[in-house]
Amino acid sequence: MTNAWPDLEGIAYGGDYNPEQWSRETWREDVALMREAGVNLVSVGIFSWALIEVAEGEFDFSWLDELLDLLNENGIHVDLGTPTASPPAWFFAAYPESRVIDREGRVMGFGSRGMVSHSSPAYREAIVRIADALATRYASHPAVVLWHIHNEYGVPVGEDYSPASVAAFRDWLQEKYATLDALNAAWGTAFWGQHYTAWEHIDAPAIAPSVVNPAQRLDFARFTDHQLRECFIAEREAIRAHAAQPITTNFMANQSWTTDLWAWGREVDIVSDDHYLWAADEDAHIGLAIAADLSRSVGGGKPWILMEHSTSAVNWQPRNIAKRRGEMKRNSLTHLGRGADGILFFQWRAGRSGAEKFHSAMLPHAGRDSRVFREVTALGADLSALAEVQGSTVEAEVAVLWDFESFWAQDLEWRPSEDVSHAAQVRRFYEQLWRDGITVDFALPGHDLSKYKLVVAPAQYLLTQADAANLTAYVENGGTLLVSFFSAIVDENDAVHAGGFAAPLRDALGLTVEEFLPLREGESHRLDWDGHDDVVSDVWQEDIALAGAEVVANFGGGPGERGPAITRHRHGAGTGWYVGTRLDAAGMRGLFREVYAGAGLTASGLPEGLEVITRKGDGAVYRIAVNHGTDAVALPAVGTELLSGAAVDGSFTIAAGGVAVIRSTD
Amino acid sequence: MTNAWPDLEGIAYGGDYNPEQWSRETWREDVALMREAGVNLVSVGIFSWALIEVAEGEFDFSWLDELLDLLNENGIHVDLGTPTASPPAWFFAAYPESRVIDREGRVMGFGSRGMVSHSSPAYREAIVRIADALATRYASHPAVVLWHIHNEYGVPVGEDYSPASVAAFRDWLQEKYATLDALNAAWGTAFWGQHYTAWEHIDAPAIAPSVVNPAQRLDFARFTDHQLRECFIAEREAIRAHAAQPITTNFMANQSWTTDLWAWGREVDIVSDDHYLWAADEDAHIGLAIAADLSRSVGGGKPWILMEHSTSAVNWQPRNIAKRRGEMKRNSLTHLGRGADGILFFQWRAGRSGAEKFHSAMLPHAGRDSRVFREVTALGADLSALAEVQGSTVEAEVAVLWDFESFWAQDLEWRPSEDVSHAAQVRRFYEQLWRDGITVDFALPGHDLSKYKLVVAPAQYLLTQADAANLTAYVENGGTLLVSFFSAIVDENDAVHAGGFAAPLRDALGLTVEEFLPLREGESHRLDWDGHDDVVSDVWQEDIALAGAEVVANFGGGPGERGPAITRHRHGAGTGWYVGTRLDAAGMRGLFREVYAGAGLTASGLPEGLEVITRKGDGAVYRIAVNHGTDAVALPAVGTELLSGAAVDGSFTIAAGGVAVIRSTD
Amino acid sequence: MTNAWPDLEGIAYGGDYNPEQWSRETWREDVALMREAGVNLVSVGIFSWALIEVAEGEFDFSWLDELLDLLNENGIHVDLGTPTASPPAWFFAAYPESRVIDREGRVMGFGSRGMVSHSSPAYREAIVRIADALATRYASHPAVVLWHIHNEYGVPVGEDYSPASVAAFRDWLQEKYATLDALNAAWGTAFWGQHYTAWEHIDAPAIAPSVVNPAQRLDFARFTDHQLRECFIAEREAIRAHAAQPITTNFMANQSWTTDLWAWGREVDIVSDDHYLWAADEDAHIGLAIAADLSRSVGGGKPWILMEHSTSAVNWQPRNIAKRRGEMKRNSLTHLGRGADGILFFQWRAGRSGAEKFHSAMLPHAGRDSRVFREVTALGADLSALAEVQGSTVEAEVAVLWDFESFWAQDLEWRPSEDVSHAAQVRRFYEQLWRDGITVDFALPGHDLSKYKLVVAPAQYLLTQADAANLTAYVENGGTLLVSFFSAIVDENDAVHAGGFAAPLRDALGLTVEEFLPLREGESHRLDWDGHDDVVSDVWQEDIALAGAEVVANFGGGPGERGPAITRHRHGAGTGWYVGTRLDAAGMRGLFREVYAGAGLTASGLPEGLEVITRKGDGAVYRIAVNHGTDAVALPAVGTELLSGAAVDGSFTIAAGGVAVIRSTD
Repeated sequence: MTNAWPDLEGIAYGGDYNPEQWSRETWREDVALMREAGVNLVSVGIFSWALIEVAEGEFDFSWLDELLDLLNENGIHVDLGTPTASPPAWFFAAYPESRVIDREGRVMGFGSRGMVSHSSPAYREAIVRIADALATRYASHPAVVLWHIHNEYGVPVGEDYSPASVAAFRDWLQEKYATLDALNAAWGTAFWGQHYTAWEHIDAPAIAPSVVNPAQRLDFARFTDHQLRECFIAEREAIRAHAAQPITTNFMANQSWTTDLWAWGREVDIVSDDHYLWAADEDAHIGLAIAADLSRSVGGGKPWILMEHSTSAVNWQPRNIAKRRGEMKRNSLTHLGRGADGILFFQWRAGRSGAEKFHSAMLPHAGRDSRVFREVTALGADLSALAEVQGSTVEAEVAVLWDFESFWAQDLEWRPSEDVSHAAQVRRFYEQLWRDGITVDFALPGHDLSKYKLVVAPAQYLLTQADAANLTAYVENGGTLLVSFFSAIVDENDAVHAGGFAAPLRDALGLTVEEFLPLREGESHRLDWDGHDDVVSDVWQEDIALAGAEVVANFGGGPGERGPAITRHRHGAGTGWYVGTRLDAAGMRGLFREVYAGAGLTASGLPEGLEVITRKGDGAVYRIAVNHGTDAVALPAVGTELLSGAAVDGSFTIAAGGVAVIRSTD
Repeated sequence: MTNAWPDLEGIAYGGDYNPEQWSRETWREDVALMREAGVNLVSVGIFSWALIEVAEGEFDFSWLDELLDLLNENGIHVDLGTPTASPPAWFFAAYPESRVIDREGRVMGFGSRGMVSHSSPAYREAIVRIADALATRYASHPAVVLWHIHNEYGVPVGEDYSPASVAAFRDWLQEKYATLDALNAAWGTAFWGQHYTAWEHIDAPAIAPSVVNPAQRLDFARFTDHQLRECFIAEREAIRAHAAQPITTNFMANQSWTTDLWAWGREVDIVSDDHYLWAADEDAHIGLAIAADLSRSVGGGKPWILMEHSTSAVNWQPRNIAKRRGEMKRNSLTHLGRGADGILFFQWRAGRSGAEKFHSAMLPHAGRDSRVFREVTALGADLSALAEVQGSTVEAEVAVLWDFESFWAQDLEWRPSEDVSHAAQVRRFYEQLWRDGITVDFALPGHDLSKYKLVVAPAQYLLTQADAANLTAYVENGGTLLVSFFSAIVDENDAVHAGGFAAPLRDALGLTVEEFLPLREGESHRLDWDGHDDVVSDVWQEDIALAGAEVVANFGGGPGERGPAITRHRHGAGTGWYVGTRLDAAGMRGLFREVYAGAGLTASGLPEGLEVITRKGDGAVYRIAVNHGTDAVALPAVGTELLSGAAVDGSFTIAAGGVAVIRSTD
Repeated sequence: MTNAWPDLEGIAYGGDYNPEQWSRETWREDVALMREAGVNLVSVGIFSWALIEVAEGEFDFSWLDELLDLLNENGIHVDLGTPTASPPAWFFAAYPESRVIDREGRVMGFGSRGMVSHSSPAYREAIVRIADALATRYASHPAVVLWHIHNEYGVPVGEDYSPASVAAFRDWLQEKYATLDALNAAWGTAFWGQHYTAWEHIDAPAIAPSVVNPAQRLDFARFTDHQLRECFIAEREAIRAHAAQPITTNFMANQSWTTDLWAWGREVDIVSDDHYLWAADEDAHIGLAIAADLSRSVGGGKPWILMEHSTSAVNWQPRNIAKRRGEMKRNSLTHLGRGADGILFFQWRAGRSGAEKFHSAMLPHAGRDSRVFREVTALGADLSALAEVQGSTVEAEVAVLWDFESFWAQDLEWRPSEDVSHAAQVRRFYEQLWRDGITVDFALPGHDLSKYKLVVAPAQYLLTQADAANLTAYVENGGTLLVSFFSAIVDENDAVHAGGFAAPLRDALGLTVEEFLPLREGESHRLDWDGHDDVVSDVWQEDIALAGAEVVANFGGGPGERGPAITRHRHGAGTGWYVGTRLDAAGMRGLFREVYAGAGLTASGLPEGLEVITRKGDGAVYRIAVNHGTDAVALPAVGTELLSGAAVDGSFTIAAGGVAVIRSTD
């Protein structure tokens, strides 16, 4: 890793800038308005391959030279993109075999974006050529403070079934397994007669008459992630040979699942993330908080950049709900509270043409005299007032496990019930912690978890023996572990652990699971739970074989009637909790109250809808408060409210929909 | 244009006749029953290519000679089809590259219908050969009074992604744009890195990982329409070289969207249309009225032919609801009232075999002794009594804009809300006019609209500056214009107009739209509208920036709360109305009442369900009345009821489900 | 047919055994546990091709030798599978043209199961080679008592659109029709211009722009069934050349529709069937009873083997509901009661890896100390107590028509209403008989039906004139025939019968149908039916033209209002009943009560949920009673209850969820 933070002052503020679509006159207007809005960083060149490398190996930098100079003259820094997410038409004409083929054998054509095979040798050669050319020319350009490789790796497509991908998959497998015996064992090819006797007989897991070998699919997901990352590394190395600025690529935390962000977090100099609200979700700001916490966590807790979000509506959802007055600021401050030191948008100016013309922008179609631009300018001023927050960090007492490998495995076909979604499970557990005002990190089950009072495993379907041992040791040493049903079921090859379901956590939890008892659609049953009379659960029950655990609640009806539903187990100095069903909201609230009590945690007790996150700097503590509610709220505090500059002595009132950032010294 | 109307007496009556499936004995029975039913025109040969051109260039006309002679001897006229909608098996065996390929790359096989690439050179050669052969042989046959080219162009498939189509698309683009710079500008290829440097790099807009360039897709829709029409013209010219009879092809107005019927209307000698009720629509007769008005409008108001409808159920809908007693007559008379001088069916005799064996016919499977055949015979007699109506015309005071280019653009992906459907919007506005008894023409925004008291734009998403100027001039000169939300958004390249949404109509409407505010699924809000307490709207709100317009109603809740929802603007001698949301039925009724008042229109005041349309002939006025209700209705009238021959002096009573045609002299 | 029953004592008990996945140590544990559970038959080698023929023509029998010897030493018999459902990877690498292509042109890859073209010459050669090799080696092995060819023919894919399949289809058509004239006539190719002039122009009915010729699709369904069966016969003959044991293949009665089990029943020595509960069906045991009765019927009433069912949940449904305590035994006894003399499971030991790892097994993941294994062991003991039942037979007084050809035809596109499902119709009529305690056989309409008091035709859409004559003669000779709407519509070519719908049954039923009147979604109407005030019907009405039948009930509303809904017709010595709508439960109950009365049948009068089936042996009668209810039930009986050994004198009480088998002498 080279530089830790781009060379700019305070919080980064700006957005994607695609002036290729506009006249020179518009460029000048843009730069003037950027200054008005307080923009200090723009991302440039992300889709410009065809305009820079105008024919294979033939470069035209003239317009980009002019643009970067213009930005530099106006004090606007540049995050310079490599345009490799979208190769030019001439590339596909010369290398038609570089087109992606999907699982059904359909060739993905030109005319959109993100359509290239990341295993194509021609593509790999081309990306190094253009990354090298850009770095050679602009490594020393004073505007450039950050490099931005590619765009949203793995979106809109990750998997590729082209011949180049199949060939690369075979190489990757040979590298991983060395022998066919090892591969046959790992994939369990004895089942359904899939034994391999030659590497070249192995295919990508394309459509077949029935379900394809799940271990093969899981390896293909790993391979897909690996191929994308290899391309990133190739570009990064090409740039680093010339340039000293930090290098990033923009993730899509909590919105795309094709990349293992833990691995990617190790490769980038600084994490950056794109986040878009899911409009159909009335509590979309909770999904946003997950994305922000995940971005921070995969970067090891260091400051990161919100590389893209939207000023108002997006354009690709069924109904693209516009943000209302103040919502953009609340979103921005939540990201900042959770560790983002840059707040950028897609995009600066709304494009007139193309697939995203209805995507909102900092400068909307309605122009400068618009609600959106006024809020953009106000946000610029606010962020400017928060410059000192840059570099401070977030600390968490709770970890929620988030493991892409497990999610990939759980997403495969033929699971016990289609109502069990890992994403919904994580959201359910996270949401209760959010409502209780408890900040969380995300973690892998193999991480050092010793600093956390509580570790939650909402959807740890795949758990290796080693990781199970790590979790068990965490409990033994005094930690509190809360595990949900359908965890610790399979190993790294999607093979069921011996000894009954959840057996690897037998010691930590004091139980195994004898049989899954999924419920019918819409079916739900009451729990028998002392002090919790009205708790109902649905989707899942199971037949738990106790091995030391104490029963907290039993199933009050359904196929598991009278069997244990929630258990607690003392192991070593710690406690293992287990919940064998999907609890309703009351059940989740009740469960966590009991878990907190044992783990030495307390819910914040703040009013519903008031989100408060704390960042710690050198000698200062910043509390970022976001009021999602419809009433003003008084937050107990002492210090200075930075947006208003007001001194706070005891309490600060935050208007409905408003925000505050209070600096104190403790 | 050659002859304006086929050489036959009175109203044309009959249907598709496919005797290839039957014995000579059945032919004779058919002809006898046709005479019994009053049939005077049958469409012949539409699917007979394989039986006429039995091998490439080898013709067998014997059976067709015999058939036409038999029909002629019995005084039954012939609409002679070219069979080019369905090439023979030998054609596809010889020219497999002529098969259609769909967007996903799937090759469309033989064994169905309509499966050929209209860009295939082999197909184009073959259609001219067979059209020429048919015209050479039958130009002077006394039975033939009309030529019927192909069948339902663009159905079941219009778009074609075969190599022949791609090659033709490139030629069409080169013809349209001349330079790649022009194409790159029109398509906005700077977005997502799609810049082209060679014509041969351009593809049809086949599937890609994400959304394909919308301007490219819009051009491909235009190209598709153009290719189909080129084939029609090639056949027409081949026939015209020999034959003097009028030439038509059967449209599918309001049921297919792949052909720009305004352009097609200019190429045919007489418009003909196929129409089928949509069974799930309880008011399917309103959809029928739209189709009929559109057929008349694209033909410039001249008499047209209802080439196909059904006597009872069709066979291709999820539930094929049979028509009940009298419904076929009501449907037929509505078509006639709206300008059809021919009432034909698919088909004469129900076929025993094939995909449409459960489609109703004039002669059903149950045979002569059946409800359907009795009603067919009665209808023949009725139409015979209406002979004098032939040639009279319909006049309308209101125009509703109907623009295929705009519909194509609006149907593309990634629009603000999937709940906004152009077809539903047109239906909503048309339906209120229908309920108010007001007859409408359809028109393009560039037409001379000066004769209309009111012009309605329910879904004019694409509006060129020139067409906007035409609408503005219409208002300036005293017209009343009613515009719905999501109008005047993009230009001819699907690029957003500068200056805010709806800016091209700023002068006419006195406003622009700052931001779209689509509503969530199922969300609705009350309007604040003086004198309209209970009006609710849904799907859409928006942030209107007034520029002179007067506010008629505001949003009573939702994201646009307190902003304008309905406005009225005085411009020049006329008025521009705007409605920024989707109104419920009460809202539509109320809105139109106010609009009528200003435009000098009045609702008919007739009972609900009584449809009355007026045709004007030489010295006679015909009022066609169709009672869709369940009660008898007395219609004020003076003159003669033609079906019964009864003199009418003051009022004529129409039974529930009944019809009447009253001739008067004013 | 060679041997009628495998050479083993009593009821066969066991399951699929796939030890390829496990160590030798596990094999020994397995065999010990099998003995503990009373297992006497296991199916071996079904997916073992790659481990037996390790390269083309190169065999390794060592592990299989060892396994069979081990089983033999422990007294466990073997059902030896040919592994031809799943060819090895090397086969597809060598013969890539043997892969299945689906209707959309997608090539089905390796990595799953059942993925081969059954028309591929290379495949046909390979299956004979391996069947011959297995039979050569193991014909005399003392463990082997049964041969099991392939697995679930037609599942997961039956139809194949590969070039090999197309070529074979042309040959099959030439064989069937001899001349193109005959084919053109049968397929009605005059419709939509599909006339053929050369065999090589004919394709498989792959996707096309619209609906493909239904007669062609029907023939392709017949061809598909024929190709699968040809492969079975080739393997059977290869085995029979060496081996004397009976030969079977496992069907999927009532769960797969691609094979005509009547034809297959004639080819196997003994019928075997796989059956899985459909979890979303709360009365899944009725579907099970259908499958069992169908298995017995296609085997001509002889004992058959339940080759696979599940001990608890399966893994491939949306929600895989586990069986609860006692349910596995109830399922097993129902199969046995309906003629199964073998009760086997998929599979012995739950597999750790692969697509079916969550499928239940006799030995679950939780191991020996589990509910499931305890119930497996108890069932083994129960079946051992029932040894004497083996060979006894089931007799039925009612036949329900079940005709795969008719179902194939009815499943084609563009039928009058998508709400009419043949499977649901059969279930509806069967279910009423089941609830009335009346055991049924299934039959073809061309069978000798004289032994039945009642024949029910719930969904006989396709009915040849010859079969109609057979049904008519059955009535004439005193039988009672009950026919549902949408029967006797088309002939063997899916061509509508002349003379009105249902005309071939005009004499038997005293009516024809003039027009179908499908109802809208959710629409229903009351019947006018003396003594049945509350009966409602939905989905379908029709316009019946009486020709002698007496009206039992009329439509009380809807498009058919006041027309006949249910009729009865005396013909010769018998009666033809007709029901022209879909009755609700009360209507079905009432209808059957009247039908029974005339046919000399009576409902059992047993409590709801008590299923009793009778098997007759030499001098003994066995009544198998299964209590699906939640209350204990006393069954009047005299004799011995075999599971408990208890003497029964007057009545035997069966616990809720329990079973009993009572032997008596009458």
